Amino acid sequence: MKKNKKFIKELKQVEALIKKDLSKEKTISGLYKYIFKSNGKKIRANLSLIASSKKINKNRIKLASVIELLHTATLVHDDVVDNSPLRRGVKSVNNIWTNSHGVLIGDYIYSKAFMYMVDIGNEKILRELANATNDISQGELIQLDAVKNFDITLNKLKKISYFKTGRLFEASAKTGAINANANKAFISNISECAKYLGILFQIKDDLLDYSEKSRIGKPIFQDLKEGKVTYPFFYAYRNANVKEKKQLQNLLESKKKIKKEDIILIKKLGGILKTNQLALDYHKKSFEYANKIKDLRIKEEMIELANTALNREK
Amino acid sequence: MKKNKKFIKELKQVEALIKKDLSKEKTISGLYKYIFKSNGKKIRANLSLIASSKKINKNRIKLASVIELLHTATLVHDDVVDNSPLRRGVKSVNNIWTNSHGVLIGDYIYSKAFMYMVDIGNEKILRELANATNDISQGELIQLDAVKNFDITLNKLKKISYFKTGRLFEASAKTGAINANANKAFISNISECAKYLGILFQIKDDLLDYSEKSRIGKPIFQDLKEGKVTYPFFYAYRNANVKEKKQLQNLLESKKKIKKEDIILIKKLGGILKTNQLALDYHKKSFEYANKIKDLRIKEEMIELANTALNREK
Repeated sequence: MKKNKKFIKELKQVEALIKKDLSKEKTISGLYKYIFKSNGKKIRANLSLIASSKKINKNRIKLASVIELLHTATLVHDDVVDNSPLRRGVKSVNNIWTNSHGVLIGDYIYSKAFMYMVDIGNEKILRELANATNDISQGELIQLDAVKNFDITLNKLKKISYFKTGRLFEASAKTGAINANANKAFISNISECAKYLGILFQIKDDLLDYSEKSRIGKPIFQDLKEGKVTYPFFYAYRNANVKEKKQLQNLLESKKKIKKEDIILIKKLGGILKTNQLALDYHKKSFEYANKIKDLRIKEEMIELANTALNREK
Repeated sequence: MKKNKKFIKELKQVEALIKKDLSKEKTISGLYKYIFKSNGKKIRANLSLIASSKKINKNRIKLASVIELLHTATLVHDDVVDNSPLRRGVKSVNNIWTNSHGVLIGDYIYSKAFMYMVDIGNEKILRELANATNDISQGELIQLDAVKNFDITLNKLKKISYFKTGRLFEASAKTGAINANANKAFISNISECAKYLGILFQIKDDLLDYSEKSRIGKPIFQDLKEGKVTYPFFYAYRNANVKEKKQLQNLLESKKKIKKEDIILIKKLGGILKTNQLALDYHKKSFEYANKIKDLRIKEEMIELANTALNREK
């Protein structure tokens, strides 16, 4: 990502606002500080800041903080759902404390986002974020159906990517643009651009799970270990013969360690190649909508984000 | 509870509204329908309807539905946190499906409540419910500290009862009164009355957990099994000698079946008696604020709710 000095400064303000008004209860402030100690990429908050930069107003930082809080709440709950031991390079809440702590501190963070939203007091922003959080939870629930489900359709996988990830990217841009009092065309173009950017981001995430390089902050082959059918597996399975299908089924159903030859099979069956092609498709869609944005600076920011998402290695 | 025909009819409308607009995804609508199949007492929704009955308006049913949705979302998450097998007399979501389903459908229900709140579009109602949901999650988190914590203070236990239970009772009455455009005195009196009613409700819940009669829908001695220090245990422990303290500690720390003699010890040490006295204190506080309400019909409704809460056997 381009080192845009303005956004770096504003992202710091987002961090500061998130850490304001901590609970008087030590356990709660301890958990909360732990979660926000390791700073993520804040790509969604950044998106919000880009979209709202068309016309700066006082709620800009608060809105980006809401986005970051909502995203973090879903991450904390995700880690409970996936029983994940790591998040952003450090141990997850459910790992250090318990699943119960993860569920409840996630609820706490979500309601804090809700409190900030009420401060902003814009009905359209509230509605978009209410709808988005509902869609996100639906995406996560649909994904539970994708566990060990060899018959899942491409459309269902796309719906998961959109609801689970694309939806909050879309809402980040849309509410940012609404906050800046932008016109309909701008709101629509930047929302669509962000939506496809988010789906691209998710597709790359699925791909990175299959990369042999260890990434900072996340274990690899996590999706496979959890029995999740994502794009690389989906495409490979579709191209597999009866014997290979059996082998792939075993891979997803057994809890044994993933071996290099398993990944080689998925590669051989075109799983990685086809997923890369899908990523390119979504990059193109995102790019097309970025190109429709009339504000040159914002257009360039969005194109750069899309390029970064396509080329990211971690 | 008095069979007030008007509220019965309106509570049916609440049920109908909650079941409207189901997700197109079968898994989600299936989970959702399962959760709302077994109807709870709806005491909070009822409270909302009483408070908003001062001046009927179109958002009345929607607001009571929001309250019921919020309450249900916390119940579903609670069952995950407590690993509880039963809810409202039927198997809990985490029991039939998984903890992951419980976490995510809870988020889904919470966001649905949020969508309805935005429809209502009253800033004061939004703020009160945002604050209340934040406090509820804090109450639940503080309660995690009460697990096997023999040094917990009475003040902390009271804070848990307020945040965990009293807070939503308070918010139900307060937002109902706001929705009815009531004056400040009415809003304040009915909110305080409902707050103490909620704490009373929780104290009775703690007591019922120690009753030997099996209640419909909930297992008994559940708090003890989960290692939770609640009022009966707290008061007994405070009065215990060194030997008895040891016995009580064993009771909370070991996972063995609770025996009749354990409950006899807690009774002998005044745990039940003192908790009953505390319930009477809160009943009195609730009654005092009910008495300040000038609307006679609403005053009577509130007094009746407080009496029912005090005398409830299940």
